[in-house]
Amino acid sequence: MQLSLMTWQEVEAYLTDRSAIILPIGSQEQHGPMGLIGTDAQTAEAIAHKVGAEREIVVGPTISVGMAQHHLGFTGSMTLRPTTLIALIVDYITSLSRHGFDQFYFVNGHGGNITTVQTAFQEIYAEYSLAGADCPIRCRLANWFAMKDVVNLTQELYGDKEGMHATPSEVALTQYLFPDHIKSMAPSDAAPIKRMFTDASDYRALFPDGRMAAASELANPEDGKRFLEIAAKAINKDLSAFLAGEK
Amino acid sequence: MQLSLMTWQEVEAYLTDRSAIILPIGSQEQHGPMGLIGTDAQTAEAIAHKVGAEREIVVGPTISVGMAQHHLGFTGSMTLRPTTLIALIVDYITSLSRHGFDQFYFVNGHGGNITTVQTAFQEIYAEYSLAGADCPIRCRLANWFAMKDVVNLTQELYGDKEGMHATPSEVALTQYLFPDHIKSMAPSDAAPIKRMFTDASDYRALFPDGRMAAASELANPEDGKRFLEIAAKAINKDLSAFLAGEK
Amino acid sequence: MQLSLMTWQEVEAYLTDRSAIILPIGSQEQHGPMGLIGTDAQTAEAIAHKVGAEREIVVGPTISVGMAQHHLGFTGSMTLRPTTLIALIVDYITSLSRHGFDQFYFVNGHGGNITTVQTAFQEIYAEYSLAGADCPIRCRLANWFAMKDVVNLTQELYGDKEGMHATPSEVALTQYLFPDHIKSMAPSDAAPIKRMFTDASDYRALFPDGRMAAASELANPEDGKRFLEIAAKAINKDLSAFLAGEK
Amino acid sequence: MQLSLMTWQEVEAYLTDRSAIILPIGSQEQHGPMGLIGTDAQTAEAIAHKVGAEREIVVGPTISVGMAQHHLGFTGSMTLRPTTLIALIVDYITSLSRHGFDQFYFVNGHGGNITTVQTAFQEIYAEYSLAGADCPIRCRLANWFAMKDVVNLTQELYGDKEGMHATPSEVALTQYLFPDHIKSMAPSDAAPIKRMFTDASDYRALFPDGRMAAASELANPEDGKRFLEIAAKAINKDLSAFLAGEK
Amino acid sequence: MQLSLMTWQEVEAYLTDRSAIILPIGSQEQHGPMGLIGTDAQTAEAIAHKVGAEREIVVGPTISVGMAQHHLGFTGSMTLRPTTLIALIVDYITSLSRHGFDQFYFVNGHGGNITTVQTAFQEIYAEYSLAGADCPIRCRLANWFAMKDVVNLTQELYGDKEGMHATPSEVALTQYLFPDHIKSMAPSDAAPIKRMFTDASDYRALFPDGRMAAASELANPEDGKRFLEIAAKAINKDLSAFLAGEK
Amino acid sequence: MQLSLMTWQEVEAYLTDRSAIILPIGSQEQHGPMGLIGTDAQTAEAIAHKVGAEREIVVGPTISVGMAQHHLGFTGSMTLRPTTLIALIVDYITSLSRHGFDQFYFVNGHGGNITTVQTAFQEIYAEYSLAGADCPIRCRLANWFAMKDVVNLTQELYGDKEGMHATPSEVALTQYLFPDHIKSMAPSDAAPIKRMFTDASDYRALFPDGRMAAASELANPEDGKRFLEIAAKAINKDLSAFLAGEK
Ligand code: NI
Ligand code: NI
Ligand code: NI
Ligand code: NI
Ligand code: NI
Ligand code: NI
Repeated sequence: MQLSLMTWQEVEAYLTDRSAIILPIGSQEQHGPMGLIGTDAQTAEAIAHKVGAEREIVVGPTISVGMAQHHLGFTGSMTLRPTTLIALIVDYITSLSRHGFDQFYFVNGHGGNITTVQTAFQEIYAEYSLAGADCPIRCRLANWFAMKDVVNLTQELYGDKEGMHATPSEVALTQYLFPDHIKSMAPSDAAPIKRMFTDASDYRALFPDGRMAAASELANPEDGKRFLEIAAKAINKDLSAFLAGEK
Repeated sequence: MQLSLMTWQEVEAYLTDRSAIILPIGSQEQHGPMGLIGTDAQTAEAIAHKVGAEREIVVGPTISVGMAQHHLGFTGSMTLRPTTLIALIVDYITSLSRHGFDQFYFVNGHGGNITTVQTAFQEIYAEYSLAGADCPIRCRLANWFAMKDVVNLTQELYGDKEGMHATPSEVALTQYLFPDHIKSMAPSDAAPIKRMFTDASDYRALFPDGRMAAASELANPEDGKRFLEIAAKAINKDLSAFLAGEK
Repeated sequence: MQLSLMTWQEVEAYLTDRSAIILPIGSQEQHGPMGLIGTDAQTAEAIAHKVGAEREIVVGPTISVGMAQHHLGFTGSMTLRPTTLIALIVDYITSLSRHGFDQFYFVNGHGGNITTVQTAFQEIYAEYSLAGADCPIRCRLANWFAMKDVVNLTQELYGDKEGMHATPSEVALTQYLFPDHIKSMAPSDAAPIKRMFTDASDYRALFPDGRMAAASELANPEDGKRFLEIAAKAINKDLSAFLAGEK
Repeated sequence: MQLSLMTWQEVEAYLTDRSAIILPIGSQEQHGPMGLIGTDAQTAEAIAHKVGAEREIVVGPTISVGMAQHHLGFTGSMTLRPTTLIALIVDYITSLSRHGFDQFYFVNGHGGNITTVQTAFQEIYAEYSLAGADCPIRCRLANWFAMKDVVNLTQELYGDKEGMHATPSEVALTQYLFPDHIKSMAPSDAAPIKRMFTDASDYRALFPDGRMAAASELANPEDGKRFLEIAAKAINKDLSAFLAGEK
Repeated sequence: MQLSLMTWQEVEAYLTDRSAIILPIGSQEQHGPMGLIGTDAQTAEAIAHKVGAEREIVVGPTISVGMAQHHLGFTGSMTLRPTTLIALIVDYITSLSRHGFDQFYFVNGHGGNITTVQTAFQEIYAEYSLAGADCPIRCRLANWFAMKDVVNLTQELYGDKEGMHATPSEVALTQYLFPDHIKSMAPSDAAPIKRMFTDASDYRALFPDGRMAAASELANPEDGKRFLEIAAKAINKDLSAFLAGEK
Repeated sequence: MQLSLMTWQEVEAYLTDRSAIILPIGSQEQHGPMGLIGTDAQTAEAIAHKVGAEREIVVGPTISVGMAQHHLGFTGSMTLRPTTLIALIVDYITSLSRHGFDQFYFVNGHGGNITTVQTAFQEIYAEYSLAGADCPIRCRLANWFAMKDVVNLTQELYGDKEGMHATPSEVALTQYLFPDHIKSMAPSDAAPIKRMFTDASDYRALFPDGRMAAASELANPEDGKRFLEIAAKAINKDLSAFLAGEK
């Protein structure tokens, strides 16, 4: 149930007895020698669409460019400044809450988005708190790659070689989604994670080909299919808890 | 050639002898009783991808939510505030120009975006002008629906019934793109255009079902195919002029 | 009827049966070797004051500096960043609407202002649309130099030599308004318009003396008088349509 | 020497051996039952033009709307938010300093502008200080109504009846400037100044007809002529000190 | 009565019959060879706490970094941009006014804060004035170092050697407060005040060791004790006038 | 080594062979019936000062008001909007990095600050990444209450009764720091944590007396002393890793 494929009257009907929306958010950023620039948006979108279809919950438009300043040292990477992303999320939520949506469930494919999106939620809540008014909405950010069952599968399949960026799991998922766009790379060790990075030039100095300790070449479409299924299942369950008002 | 489906090394290779990028921009907004909410993003994206493929020019991620405040009276419509959209475009262009992209060609599917996007270009140029520096980039906004050949075809096919919003031409194009999501409507006259609208409540009062003088029901997928082809051809030609540095 | 020459009680009386205000907006920017830097503000102001007097409609203070980043390559030109001009217009309109003004008719003398001013209107409307509230005001931007009868007269008097910047028509109008400040120039061809410009350095490279295909030297005060009259008449008529709620 | 009445080449010539500019700033705000809404802009502009002419120093466009939130309880008053006025002044100065102007002398007609304009200067200086760069410009705000000789004359002519807003001195000056727009009022005591105001409703509650302890009715054009002369003389002298780099 | 040392229930009880709060504001900036960087915050805080204790009025958290761009040429100095400080003050006041505080009395230790803080007050009032609503709060900024009795004591003790920055009076006060952190300096004349400064590099060129005509070395803790007492007394009296609604 | 207690020359000397600074950040917010409003600032400051003294590293001014919108339902709580806190941190770091500080270690006492402060770091890095420049600084946020050894001690002393807000550990630490301000409360169960909160009214509905599952009454000054020591030790060690460039 994609918002973009509905008419306004269908959305109106949906809101007569439901009020949740799923919003995929990703990034356009380098994913090493064989990972796609759109990986994080593609994976978040695919999982969100699958869950939305299974649950008959509306899925809004994918936020395809996120906060990825640290990847700008690699050609093609894009970023929003954090304050721009905050403004964008405020506008998305304000638009949709005007119609009656009041439960906003973000499915996220990019670790770099986490603090900024959480901060955007606080910016929205703060307006109500400062005004002494009751905030009518609730938001949650769910990171598919960090769901317990997903992490377990990465360990089972790749162990330490999963790494932290351009991971075989995310690459596998995009291979399953875009079989015509599977790339290969000469086998080579990814740079290990010695410390956290700051800006783009620091990141590139630490991780010369873009990967963070990840053996992207282990990816294959079959694994990708499993990740899509297990991630959707985990998100589905977390979404249930969210809709039930649980922690 | 979608940026999202490339690796960073492929983008790097592309930039060795080219520097243009196409950016689709649309909107999520009501399109009357049978038009899809994502129409403007879907049409701009399809045309941009077609032109990008034919010309082997990179196409960036689609800006799927634009400036559509006037449609918020209809459920499901979304908007960015104009100043948020300006910030977003500044960040997109700044990110990409850092890598060497210097010709930004926006394919637009939504009339409501025009002034804001043009203003964003000026915001970027102004930074250079105020600093007394040479601006290294050029931007153009091309509205596929306003290209001469497209307008001619709408007149040929629908005459006055094309209208101005939820037009049969754009609905047709989405029918061709999404054959599983073709909707129907009870035949009824769209409200005529008596005057221009201001905000969302004014728009809804003037155009109760969302259409502006448009007979959406005339749309059919075959027409949509023609619009895709003729729009891509027109955009292709305009893009050539842009890349050649012409007016 | 200039706002600046009224007392607050006179404005209060005015608003008992009227609610419109005319706001002139121009620019401070180079106008070639013989055009005045204040041309666009001077012409807009003169036309607005004439119409205001004829129609007994209040005319607010002239916005004398607009969006003219592309002219900064020529000494003395000034600009507001687009986002600053948006903020200014929001504050003007918010101030005045608090008193009961609800029809804002901007008389514009500068093409570079158009997209930014239109965007400012959308920024205002968007606040209401996002809040689900009815916007009490309506705004229009009227460009005197683009009114049909004005364009016809430029063609009759100057044909192709009217050009697009530092035009004989606008220079003539300022000569009529400021007979003590008529300048002359050595006859020379203005640079033709090969393509649109981007920032200030690009503009100057394309149009070395500031004129865009305009034979400013054809200007004379008598023509200026005619332009003032015909522009005021055209604006007057357009204003009537606006006040009548027409398109 | 008004910037608006010069060509860009004349400004360029001016800057070969001079670099100062005078900028008048006023307000559009109620001035009691007989004072004009534009008083503060009109007086500042007249004094600035007189000094500019005498000294052959360029005078820029008048900032006609300032920070006057406290007057919005009276019809016709306008304000910029302080942060908007800061942005405007930053843009004015940035535009002009690009051309070589480096001494900015503001002639101010409105007490309410003082802190905001001074803050704008700091905002500009702060950019340089934070960057560790040398700031090439100097700014001063001169309030004509607070110059010692002006104050002396108000005391001589009106004593305590000068008051603090809609004062006979400023009203007199506008009467001299605009003899066709002299208004009268029924003699009545202005509200005394019991305490400072906060917002617009507080101001109106304290000063029901808009005047602050001022006997506007004492104004006459002859006094106005004296104020113009004495204010211009005082500003002229202060400007000399500023240009000489004195305190 | 420090807010930070109270429980929320104690604050709630306080607000049943009182509604004032004192907010100290200072700066972190160089104070010459022997003055402490925190001087302005330390002095404002000490005076505010003393008055708060005597009057049983709640004292909020000290704003320890203010607007001090002109001191950045000296190591360790910090500044907020004026617009950041405005936002901070707006948030402080909005937070506290939500609970019922409506009289905000700022005790200021730094001249550089004055215009920005006053501008912040106007930014708050302007929201109400533009909305046509009654502003429920009142704010005052009191500069302890400029209170008449304080100035008298500086003249009595130091005469001309008080100077304008890193003054013996403020240094003395910090010596009394922090006896373990008394510094000394080689006797040397402070640079005289020839003119006002602009940015940090200008300031440093004018005042090479940071002092403005001040003989910091005259300071001693006993004087500091006197300044604390006399400043607290003066502030106390001014606060009474403020709470009584006086000018 | 507090920055506020140093002279600028002492800071200059410090920077000849060191470049790190510790910045404490807390909050002013309710801490249940017996916890102090300033708890989070007081604890962070005490730990930071202890570590700074032991390591001879400069400690900057405490950020005493943080992001605590969710506590505004309880009297006396204050918040900065997230975007204001981002601006503040940008200004702090920009000021200090101008002098040569390049390692910024924030000691945080409040969970609600985490995402906003991390986002502020990204905002700073993004400026460099977008400009293609090398960022000269590194930042880290360390949450004393989440350090492993601290958590172990809370479990040892209080087990489940530690809870998540107004915890006995933080209350104990403030009791040790401010023995004259120890409050008591009637024993009562704190509300358990059923789910995460959104805005202030939601928080208050979930946690009526402000505590989140925390038995504040278990606190005692002796425990507080232990927490100060163990937290300082843990922070000290983490700081060493940070300065050594480790993860
Ligand atoms: Ni990824
Ligand atoms: Ni459309
Ligand atoms: Ni013009
Ligand atoms: Ni006045
Ligand atoms: Ni000081
Ligand atoms: Ni706490």
